[in-house]
Amino acid sequence: MNINSRVPVGVLGASGYVGQELLRLLAHHPGAAIAFATSEAAAGDELEGVPLVRIDDVPLARAEIVVSALPHGVSGRYVQEARAAGKRAVDLSSDFRLSPEAVYGLTEVTRSHLPAAELVANPGCYPTAALLALLPLARQGLIDPSREVVIAAASGVTGAGRAAKRELLFGEVAEDFRAYAAGNGHRHLPELRATLARESGFTGDLVFTPHLLPVKRGILETIHVPLTRALDQATAEGIYDTVYAAEPCVRVLHGALPSLRDVVYRNRVAIGVAAVANVRRPCLTVIAAIDNLVKGAAGQAIQNMNVMLGLPETAGLTC
Amino acid sequence: MNINSRVPVGVLGASGYVGQELLRLLAHHPGAAIAFATSEAAAGDELEGVPLVRIDDVPLARAEIVVSALPHGVSGRYVQEARAAGKRAVDLSSDFRLSPEAVYGLTEVTRSHLPAAELVANPGCYPTAALLALLPLARQGLIDPSREVVIAAASGVTGAGRAAKRELLFGEVAEDFRAYAAGNGHRHLPELRATLARESGFTGDLVFTPHLLPVKRGILETIHVPLTRALDQATAEGIYDTVYAAEPCVRVLHGALPSLRDVVYRNRVAIGVAAVANVRRPCLTVIAAIDNLVKGAAGQAIQNMNVMLGLPETAGLTC
Amino acid sequence: MNINSRVPVGVLGASGYVGQELLRLLAHHPGAAIAFATSEAAAGDELEGVPLVRIDDVPLARAEIVVSALPHGVSGRYVQEARAAGKRAVDLSSDFRLSPEAVYGLTEVTRSHLPAAELVANPGCYPTAALLALLPLARQGLIDPSREVVIAAASGVTGAGRAAKRELLFGEVAEDFRAYAAGNGHRHLPELRATLARESGFTGDLVFTPHLLPVKRGILETIHVPLTRALDQATAEGIYDTVYAAEPCVRVLHGALPSLRDVVYRNRVAIGVAAVANVRRPCLTVIAAIDNLVKGAAGQAIQNMNVMLGLPETAGLTC
Amino acid sequence: MNINSRVPVGVLGASGYVGQELLRLLAHHPGAAIAFATSEAAAGDELEGVPLVRIDDVPLARAEIVVSALPHGVSGRYVQEARAAGKRAVDLSSDFRLSPEAVYGLTEVTRSHLPAAELVANPGCYPTAALLALLPLARQGLIDPSREVVIAAASGVTGAGRAAKRELLFGEVAEDFRAYAAGNGHRHLPELRATLARESGFTGDLVFTPHLLPVKRGILETIHVPLTRALDQATAEGIYDTVYAAEPCVRVLHGALPSLRDVVYRNRVAIGVAAVANVRRPCLTVIAAIDNLVKGAAGQAIQNMNVMLGLPETAGLTC
Repeated sequence: MNINSRVPVGVLGASGYVGQELLRLLAHHPGAAIAFATSEAAAGDELEGVPLVRIDDVPLARAEIVVSALPHGVSGRYVQEARAAGKRAVDLSSDFRLSPEAVYGLTEVTRSHLPAAELVANPGCYPTAALLALLPLARQGLIDPSREVVIAAASGVTGAGRAAKRELLFGEVAEDFRAYAAGNGHRHLPELRATLARESGFTGDLVFTPHLLPVKRGILETIHVPLTRALDQATAEGIYDTVYAAEPCVRVLHGALPSLRDVVYRNRVAIGVAAVANVRRPCLTVIAAIDNLVKGAAGQAIQNMNVMLGLPETAGLTC
Repeated sequence: MNINSRVPVGVLGASGYVGQELLRLLAHHPGAAIAFATSEAAAGDELEGVPLVRIDDVPLARAEIVVSALPHGVSGRYVQEARAAGKRAVDLSSDFRLSPEAVYGLTEVTRSHLPAAELVANPGCYPTAALLALLPLARQGLIDPSREVVIAAASGVTGAGRAAKRELLFGEVAEDFRAYAAGNGHRHLPELRATLARESGFTGDLVFTPHLLPVKRGILETIHVPLTRALDQATAEGIYDTVYAAEPCVRVLHGALPSLRDVVYRNRVAIGVAAVANVRRPCLTVIAAIDNLVKGAAGQAIQNMNVMLGLPETAGLTC
Repeated sequence: MNINSRVPVGVLGASGYVGQELLRLLAHHPGAAIAFATSEAAAGDELEGVPLVRIDDVPLARAEIVVSALPHGVSGRYVQEARAAGKRAVDLSSDFRLSPEAVYGLTEVTRSHLPAAELVANPGCYPTAALLALLPLARQGLIDPSREVVIAAASGVTGAGRAAKRELLFGEVAEDFRAYAAGNGHRHLPELRATLARESGFTGDLVFTPHLLPVKRGILETIHVPLTRALDQATAEGIYDTVYAAEPCVRVLHGALPSLRDVVYRNRVAIGVAAVANVRRPCLTVIAAIDNLVKGAAGQAIQNMNVMLGLPETAGLTC
Repeated sequence: MNINSRVPVGVLGASGYVGQELLRLLAHHPGAAIAFATSEAAAGDELEGVPLVRIDDVPLARAEIVVSALPHGVSGRYVQEARAAGKRAVDLSSDFRLSPEAVYGLTEVTRSHLPAAELVANPGCYPTAALLALLPLARQGLIDPSREVVIAAASGVTGAGRAAKRELLFGEVAEDFRAYAAGNGHRHLPELRATLARESGFTGDLVFTPHLLPVKRGILETIHVPLTRALDQATAEGIYDTVYAAEPCVRVLHGALPSLRDVVYRNRVAIGVAAVANVRRPCLTVIAAIDNLVKGAAGQAIQNMNVMLGLPETAGLTC
């Protein structure tokens, strides 16, 4: 690809952890060039060689597509402005994830809708891992709706953003581990439930408990799946193998369980399973890992953008 | 207490993480004195001012009671030797946990059997937290046996011992998180199931997945409990409040969830609950945290020893 | 000691990291009882079983001695109020460290002035380690004033306080290491220079570079000392052995170097030395380690308080 | 570049931390293809899609150039074998660093010798940072040889290799910090001294103390430089600006100090300076940071290889 043919991409909200990751990835993208990048706090500074400007000074006309890493509740307005200016957009906030205006950008699942999409809502980090783990089973009617799907999810701190909060200080988080929003209180649940229902018809009970890990990046979700019929490990792996055979960003493990090390700094979900011994009713443990900043945010946004633009799906990404 | 009246305690296996913690706690115990401490690898060195000797040079006669932090499979033999020499013993290995010879030393549950016990099998770290979290509900018939109890447990690396293994190097564990022994493969499960059945009659399905946390110490268990009837948060907390009202080493949280910070370096289990919203069948999330080296090992061993010897139960312990 | 004879101690500023450590230590002190503890942010909460009150509601009369962990610039005023009410005080801020009103509380060096002191200024954490490492050499004229003493110091994040700052977030500090206030810009330097001059007469050049470590607690200082005459390792260790022979809170290592692990959660300075090979002019590397919250703050405050009150110097402390 | 024109590169020793990094970088290198990769422990496995073979099965003929990340003492023999087979080589061990047979591959300093080199000895990680920091001052006669240059260096654990050693366990390293090989005992010193003398003529005293940091990757060196004449910060920065103006892999900071975050995962050295206040004799604090696995090892090897092969110097590297 020639530099003159690179698609100019505008980045809204470049100084948070997701925005930084977007710039890092776009700076090395062979088919894209950063048209502008905004930051309210760091306007005037440079990041990856790109000058940061205030959002009200943004030269929208320079971009062909806009990617927003602005906060929930703020992003929607600026994305609408970009669309009003005729720009296509990928929004990383939750503002459009439940909206019919947008295509939900879980690439492996909604890929066919992306080339024509004007607005793509990038999924939440927790739903990305959970959906890629659950949909293959749910679509085949393998999940028993009379028992709960139980998700214990753990995320690195960059998932909580870069605002200065005491509870996120190194002195509080290091050597600690804790759950939060237990009892189905997390704001990602409606997105997870709605997408699972839409894409598979599964509407059974989910119990979701997120935890804060003393690591910078990465999400691991350990999912208890009650089954309608017993599956041994090889059979369960085979289901994922079949569904994801052609997917460049999904790794199905065989006889192994994923760890954060397998996925950080990569646009990859790693999935492993374990048949559960010594139980009367069939169930399966499914474990999925992603980098919350890459496949869970900036990387998937670029994966979506690539498909929207007709670029190779993994251009600029390490899977 | 006068130093002359301190009970002489012998420690077998003092150079692993549990053994070190035992020495640290015993060194400040007002009613105990360290009679001897063994280490094969570090014989000749001092720890907490105590010279380490090889186990074959151990002056058994000097101790009134022996606490063993030797490895599983090794400990049993030396504990039997100590008993043959007329010594009482607390064994931290798993060698006697399922044996009728020993009293199972989950202090809050089996306290009444300790004063007369000659041999106490100290519980495993994972079962300690799980049992203290589950027994109050199980004993009241509140756990629905037709659905799975699902335990996602996470432990700091000292739980895996101090032997040099590549998978436990800082370069592998830092910034990582992973499950292991998924699918009910952990060796603590028979102990957990047997004790739960014996102490409450509950024999329903359990699914247990342990994880390795990038922290030095601490265990957090997030437990999904299917209920026979709905419990709101206050009612659930009230059940724990009632059961543990007089317990010095149990903290029941109200409107909060425990974290490792609450428990490390303390002989304490902290328990918190969350009622689960948006599910059709009643369930509860129960979270329990302990320090794997203290309430999960050395601290509980001393708590048991104190009761065996008629000392104040928390002597030498910070709860 | 009988609980009725415990000295009532008031704590000003109990919710920062130093204040929490003070409460943790005082809660187990056999000769002291916490008379009150203040916190503006957490008034109404409990810490170590002690209710926190606003400073303006403080029942000064209940305390016999006041220990202040209030911030620099704020502490001075409240300590003066306590003194006006006839209370003795230990101030952990820098407000009195250079003042003739106060006794400088580097216990091992100024012990003889403590029993009569009404006001003790507790030393800064960096000067505590540096002074205990340098004074034995400086007092014997062993430091060559024609070359620089060069101190590379590294501190855990609790040394930077508990206020929410972006640069102290886990996402920024984990996996990072950096210097700050390089070029002799640290505010502890006047205290270090003045005390070194007063206690030893040494007024040579010092170059001090502090660093921020990705750990919660602990300070390690690696000190380059130009010597007036060559010292081999055993001779250098012997100098420290002699000076600190009777000190309960100083560990001189032989043929080993201190690490944070040796000192955290202890009121101890560990000192090790290395003779420097392959240089033309004699010099020595001296390494000192402390826990910044214990010997560097709360622990030394209690050590000082113990001496002021005629209690055993290490009462309530693990050295 | 066309895949058919990619240079086939053979990697010896691919399963240690440096070897893994080499594969990660080469897998995305636009001008190179991995011809083979060896591992004794993991032969048969795949890494970055490349099958690992035993070194005795290595198809040397397939490679045009060989990069060795084998251990010191082992590497030399296999590199000689490769040379005997007519292959050019970059050796990451210390086996040839002091040998006249090899070109010392500190790219910014010895670049002109690389295109014709048959064998390049890649520098040690500590010398890389120290030399790039010291040479600009040394070459201008700005370092006062009558006082010591004092280097406090700190490295992440991957610098110590991937062999299972107790002292490198997470349970030992986390929350710890310690010096090692103090007193000029580190094996990198002869390399550092010899190169400094050869490239600048400076032969004054150096005092070097390495430390082990609780991070995975990164080296920070804080260097005390006695000056022959005073330099203010802007003047000092200007010296580095001039020397490194055209260097793609050197970042000279202005009014700021480098941190590990600035350099990890990048083939970059970041250098910052601070003028030292309140000293009688002029001196400067220079701080240099690199990623020990990238600019300190695998990245610089590729940078050297690129120059050897006439490829763009930063091909496949993020600087």
